[in-house]
Amino acid sequence: MQTQLLERMESEVRTYSRSFPVVFTKAQNARLTDEADREYIDFLAGAGTLNYGHNNPHIKQALLDYLAEDNIIHGLDFWTAAKRDYLEALEEVILKPRGLDYKVQFPGPTGTNAVEAAIRLARNAKGRHNIVTFTNGFHGVTMGALATTGNRKFREATGGVPTVGGSFMPFDGYLGEGADTLDYFEKLLGDKSGGLDIPAAVIVETVQGEGGINVAGLDWLKRLEGICHAHDILLIVDDIQAGCGRTGKFFSFEHADVVPDIVTNSKSLSGLGLPFSQVLVRPELDVWKPGQYNGTFRGFALAFTTAAAALRQYWSDDGLAQDVARKGEVVAERFQKIARMLRELGIEASERGRGLMRGIDVGSGEIADKITHQAFENGLVIETSGQDGEVVKCLCPLTITDEELKKGLDILETSTKQALS
Amino acid sequence: MQTQLLERMESEVRTYSRSFPVVFTKAQNARLTDEADREYIDFLAGAGTLNYGHNNPHIKQALLDYLAEDNIIHGLDFWTAAKRDYLEALEEVILKPRGLDYKVQFPGPTGTNAVEAAIRLARNAKGRHNIVTFTNGFHGVTMGALATTGNRKFREATGGVPTVGGSFMPFDGYLGEGADTLDYFEKLLGDKSGGLDIPAAVIVETVQGEGGINVAGLDWLKRLEGICHAHDILLIVDDIQAGCGRTGKFFSFEHADVVPDIVTNSKSLSGLGLPFSQVLVRPELDVWKPGQYNGTFRGFALAFTTAAAALRQYWSDDGLAQDVARKGEVVAERFQKIARMLRELGIEASERGRGLMRGIDVGSGEIADKITHQAFENGLVIETSGQDGEVVKCLCPLTITDEELKKGLDILETSTKQALS
Amino acid sequence: MQTQLLERMESEVRTYSRSFPVVFTKAQNARLTDEADREYIDFLAGAGTLNYGHNNPHIKQALLDYLAEDNIIHGLDFWTAAKRDYLEALEEVILKPRGLDYKVQFPGPTGTNAVEAAIRLARNAKGRHNIVTFTNGFHGVTMGALATTGNRKFREATGGVPTVGGSFMPFDGYLGEGADTLDYFEKLLGDKSGGLDIPAAVIVETVQGEGGINVAGLDWLKRLEGICHAHDILLIVDDIQAGCGRTGKFFSFEHADVVPDIVTNSKSLSGLGLPFSQVLVRPELDVWKPGQYNGTFRGFALAFTTAAAALRQYWSDDGLAQDVARKGEVVAERFQKIARMLRELGIEASERGRGLMRGIDVGSGEIADKITHQAFENGLVIETSGQDGEVVKCLCPLTITDEELKKGLDILETSTKQALS
Amino acid sequence: MQTQLLERMESEVRTYSRSFPVVFTKAQNARLTDEADREYIDFLAGAGTLNYGHNNPHIKQALLDYLAEDNIIHGLDFWTAAKRDYLEALEEVILKPRGLDYKVQFPGPTGTNAVEAAIRLARNAKGRHNIVTFTNGFHGVTMGALATTGNRKFREATGGVPTVGGSFMPFDGYLGEGADTLDYFEKLLGDKSGGLDIPAAVIVETVQGEGGINVAGLDWLKRLEGICHAHDILLIVDDIQAGCGRTGKFFSFEHADVVPDIVTNSKSLSGLGLPFSQVLVRPELDVWKPGQYNGTFRGFALAFTTAAAALRQYWSDDGLAQDVARKGEVVAERFQKIARMLRELGIEASERGRGLMRGIDVGSGEIADKITHQAFENGLVIETSGQDGEVVKCLCPLTITDEELKKGLDILETSTKQALS
Repeated sequence: MQTQLLERMESEVRTYSRSFPVVFTKAQNARLTDEADREYIDFLAGAGTLNYGHNNPHIKQALLDYLAEDNIIHGLDFWTAAKRDYLEALEEVILKPRGLDYKVQFPGPTGTNAVEAAIRLARNAKGRHNIVTFTNGFHGVTMGALATTGNRKFREATGGVPTVGGSFMPFDGYLGEGADTLDYFEKLLGDKSGGLDIPAAVIVETVQGEGGINVAGLDWLKRLEGICHAHDILLIVDDIQAGCGRTGKFFSFEHADVVPDIVTNSKSLSGLGLPFSQVLVRPELDVWKPGQYNGTFRGFALAFTTAAAALRQYWSDDGLAQDVARKGEVVAERFQKIARMLRELGIEASERGRGLMRGIDVGSGEIADKITHQAFENGLVIETSGQDGEVVKCLCPLTITDEELKKGLDILETSTKQALS
Repeated sequence: MQTQLLERMESEVRTYSRSFPVVFTKAQNARLTDEADREYIDFLAGAGTLNYGHNNPHIKQALLDYLAEDNIIHGLDFWTAAKRDYLEALEEVILKPRGLDYKVQFPGPTGTNAVEAAIRLARNAKGRHNIVTFTNGFHGVTMGALATTGNRKFREATGGVPTVGGSFMPFDGYLGEGADTLDYFEKLLGDKSGGLDIPAAVIVETVQGEGGINVAGLDWLKRLEGICHAHDILLIVDDIQAGCGRTGKFFSFEHADVVPDIVTNSKSLSGLGLPFSQVLVRPELDVWKPGQYNGTFRGFALAFTTAAAALRQYWSDDGLAQDVARKGEVVAERFQKIARMLRELGIEASERGRGLMRGIDVGSGEIADKITHQAFENGLVIETSGQDGEVVKCLCPLTITDEELKKGLDILETSTKQALS
Repeated sequence: MQTQLLERMESEVRTYSRSFPVVFTKAQNARLTDEADREYIDFLAGAGTLNYGHNNPHIKQALLDYLAEDNIIHGLDFWTAAKRDYLEALEEVILKPRGLDYKVQFPGPTGTNAVEAAIRLARNAKGRHNIVTFTNGFHGVTMGALATTGNRKFREATGGVPTVGGSFMPFDGYLGEGADTLDYFEKLLGDKSGGLDIPAAVIVETVQGEGGINVAGLDWLKRLEGICHAHDILLIVDDIQAGCGRTGKFFSFEHADVVPDIVTNSKSLSGLGLPFSQVLVRPELDVWKPGQYNGTFRGFALAFTTAAAALRQYWSDDGLAQDVARKGEVVAERFQKIARMLRELGIEASERGRGLMRGIDVGSGEIADKITHQAFENGLVIETSGQDGEVVKCLCPLTITDEELKKGLDILETSTKQALS
Repeated sequence: MQTQLLERMESEVRTYSRSFPVVFTKAQNARLTDEADREYIDFLAGAGTLNYGHNNPHIKQALLDYLAEDNIIHGLDFWTAAKRDYLEALEEVILKPRGLDYKVQFPGPTGTNAVEAAIRLARNAKGRHNIVTFTNGFHGVTMGALATTGNRKFREATGGVPTVGGSFMPFDGYLGEGADTLDYFEKLLGDKSGGLDIPAAVIVETVQGEGGINVAGLDWLKRLEGICHAHDILLIVDDIQAGCGRTGKFFSFEHADVVPDIVTNSKSLSGLGLPFSQVLVRPELDVWKPGQYNGTFRGFALAFTTAAAALRQYWSDDGLAQDVARKGEVVAERFQKIARMLRELGIEASERGRGLMRGIDVGSGEIADKITHQAFENGLVIETSGQDGEVVKCLCPLTITDEELKKGLDILETSTKQALS
């Protein structure tokens, strides 16, 4: 494999190519192939961007059909038939059946664009600057979003400019068993000299992806919604990684019977890995004036097209949702087995997750790295997450075949044994 | 045309669909078609994103070829054959012939992602927080980039959070004829109590697009580079709109014989309207540590593919560059004619621009709106820019045919007469 | 009493004159006299500024002696004999006997000047921007200090400018009995994605005055010091209200056997109510370059003179300290009695404090207001504190006579009964 | 002189004691005496704090009278007879005769306290965060005030925390002869994408003291007032150094027939060097709610007393004002003579100032230092100001005797010759 040019020309900021130092060429559903024709099972799936697998044939066909004629590809924020078709699919397939009523903003195609727009809209709507976010939350790295992202790696690389307008609260479970972390939040809200500026909004992931597959309890989420309502604070669910079916329902907050004021989606939204994001907002909060937020790639028609195809293909019935639930159990059981195995080796390990967003906490980044490096040797692409990279994380395509899933889990189990022997 | 769904579901933030309230369907080179099969000449071209025209056949073929097999589409920041191929094209076709030596960061596919990365890298490299930017500059709207963007529309819609870390200097010409605005900048740099924190970097557009086709003089740019060198300040050229050949050379700073420390590109970089951006940085300034800046869509292989095709197709020789120079003159002459016509009507008007980035300043946004609305009626999509929208702006595809260019200019001339009669 | 001119001319920002709407004229030790010759026992004592009483004769004599000749009164930051004399007293009477080694900065004569200087010095010394502060902490209201002050009244009156560079942690006891709040702080320090930027310093009051007489446990303070040492974080004790003997030792942190890196003093430091403050800093942290922090009134020689007199008069032996301990017990017992009385009336009340910094938490600001208003009617000046003003606070002069103390406590007890009957 | 203790114990931040390394003991009017009984003429006068001289007998007598009985010294923001008496003097002697109607805030006794309060009040009143300030402006160093102070020495010593909410415009004369710098400000105000956030207020010194005795033209000030009115921007005159008669009128803005919305005073306000400051605000702008801004030393009765005495003694007629005008001319003529002398030596020098706020710009800090060091050797205390310390600055007491003034000027002239020979 020729990597000299890549090593010479690409900035030192590159990361994944350090863990997986091969040149990938082809990819199909849950399989990656490198330039040496080596195949890998993909448990990373674009960090949750490829819920429907690589080169999903249904979705890809929609793309090819669209490209077959001179349909408009790039259209700023023009009205296009592709945009209308997507909105129609969103309304019919997703919003209406769930009784949800949102207006849609296309803020630029990346997750951080969506978060910047969401928190700014919340601030404008409420006339307050603060946004409450949670320990181990990840919401993007542009300066506005970074105020809500906990990771020091990014926070310390701003050239000395402190972020403004984010306050961190302990996520569910952060204060240990038995403590409901929302007690602290609620106490601070009611405390006139506690130092917490009343926020415009709370932004939360129902399952923290980058933060280490930390799963918010459904009661905790419901209580959070209640606290927000009681204090006239908006609830933003950042469903960029946990949404689009990853947890077993299209929106991850459906499990908790919560209705956010604002929702951000991206990653798997386009269905094929094309850059795409959206902000859903309750109509009465849509206080934007024309043009107050912009960006060049708000109207990427190829993504509208693939996104519409994905919604219609996978969300018109509950087939995929049931599949995720079933496969999630398969992963959970195997992860529990691996965790038990680790505990027998004296390593404090445990499994957690929801749907197909699952991890094994192996206690240290060092051990997790050993396991994932060994797994890569054995043909599995899987990454770590969590504050020290101590959680081995499975984000395989939701469409993974049962055989591939089993094969991937087998590799992980074997690799864990090899890594620790 | 069915627009009810669009009106109902899309956020009030939408803008272009207000000026051009039709549903576009097809597009080819400089032609747009709406749902009623009405055709328009496109002098907007995705606000400079479609330098090679809509559905450019050469570039599109590369996309289709790539899609014909299960080549990887989304790859985080993996090494992929598509990325390598793009970097090879960039080095061979663009950098080497120009004697430029840059490392490349893919910071996420939007312009504002690139600006956020560029200014953060500059801050990290220099250990200073300030970035000097210019009046009427536009560099994006995420909070970090917004500190360098002058437009109040965005700055006042941050929910009360002031931007941090940007200082505005007067752009070339801002203090009137005869005054070199860099005198002020240089004086402040040397003034220990002038209030200007020594910046890590200056960020500048050589021709301000959103700001109103304000053209920096080549001497001014060269002097700016000299001032930066003298004070150990980095020079960032934001070539997102003016780059990729728009001014007649691939990089707009080539005209001034300036070598920036950091360059941002996006918009036309992918060649087909796909979201894509890059940051070019002098190797010794690439102080990023692995993973200090991230984003999901850093490795959008379709964009690598079309971008490589665009570079090879259009920049292996100077055909396009010469074409831009020639067509730029055509536009300039006609714009001067229109400006003369306006002055005869008592309207203070003038033409300006470089290459195919050209505008007529008609003195007020009201007049400019009348003209562009009339032009749209007559089949031309063209927008305004400048602080009051007083500049009618031509950003037609560089690949526009001579007939289409003439037709567009004819429409504009006619529409101007109609609008003002 | 003539108050029209005062009402007409003074800004609406005035506060104490609303609770105590009389014109005061004379004052001696713990007695205040108004224009109608009515006398009041003073349990407020300049919010802790008059530890040695009003018009303390020893200290006042030093002032009069100084004024008797043309000794320099105002001297910028000149060396003056008065400054030298104060530093000598500070070293001999306070620092040496306690084994403390500090350099001294006179940053301007108010507490907030001292806090601004202290946190800035900490940031410069450590190269980090964050300062950890605690719920219900009060450290001043200029913008730098305000980042560490929890009170919304001030934080929401900044005209929309968010404070920068402060992170709030729960103070001792904030998470309820049994929970050591430093567990949370320590967990966050060790958590790479918890959202807590590693601070340059922690700033803490050992007993929170404005926050409601919240008393940090001595073990908690010692553990806090240990955490700071372990993480290379500076410990700043803001001893502006709790220092100068208020808790029974000159520095309030002596009780906990803690040695802060930086100490701020003000309020009672001058001994006579003259504006005066200082920052004490461990010599190796004195990274200031000449003139990097300034202010006109850094060299107010009258305050040096009275401060030196106060130190020599009251801290050359442990007489005052013992007196405070004794009187503190008297107050504590009576407050406990009053609290019991309240609980019998069904009001959840409790006593707390250290030395002569004591309060009764009566559960609501409404009840506390009733009590203090009644007390004022009965001839006692006493204020409330805490997030809802729910704590009736005794900060009487340390030099109060036993009779006056008893009289004040009698009034309070009677007033409480009256207020609640 | 014993200086070891001072050198050992005082923080490295000390400045004046480096230029004047003696221990001062006594002071009377314009004379300073050191411990070795050496006398100095004082042209520094507490950096403008001692307009009425050291130990002014009239003012001092008022202080002694007040101290003779147990009048209250420190009273938080209580109503006191001393405060009422001061407000009465302010209204009768100053405000009414000038037709001014202001409410008064006592924000803490230092200049920076006053500036923090003034800009915060402006922001609250206008609902905008930005404050426009000017090149070479000095308004204090606490973080809020520092946003409006140009000096890098302070701005770079904030431990990396950027200031928020200040925008610098060129002061009168900054762009060279013939250019009215307000053209630039006005252009930016009208420019929707110029990067200038519409400010809540402009803060300006009519003569910049620390900035180098830069004198704003009276027309320029009047035009500035007009621009503020036209754009609904508040005008704050920071009269901390230039006020209290320094320029020949009580308020420095009287010369320009300007009526600010907000005025800050401090320095000479107490008349005797006691810490004291005030904010004057047009009644309709007094939007403070009770207690939104606080501080311990808002009610320092000794300063009320001396300030009232100073107003009545010196401002009941125009004697002092005329004296300042006359003495100002004496200084101006001599400074012009010295400047001529310097120009004959090839040093580009010039005189400038208003009233008794005067300077000689000698072109470099090095030359200015030589002159002032030599002057100190010869018995004159005088300091430099300006961005490089290139301006030798005279701020002698307004009450200086003619003989002392002549003697001081003689020393300066002689010292200049000696320094440059």
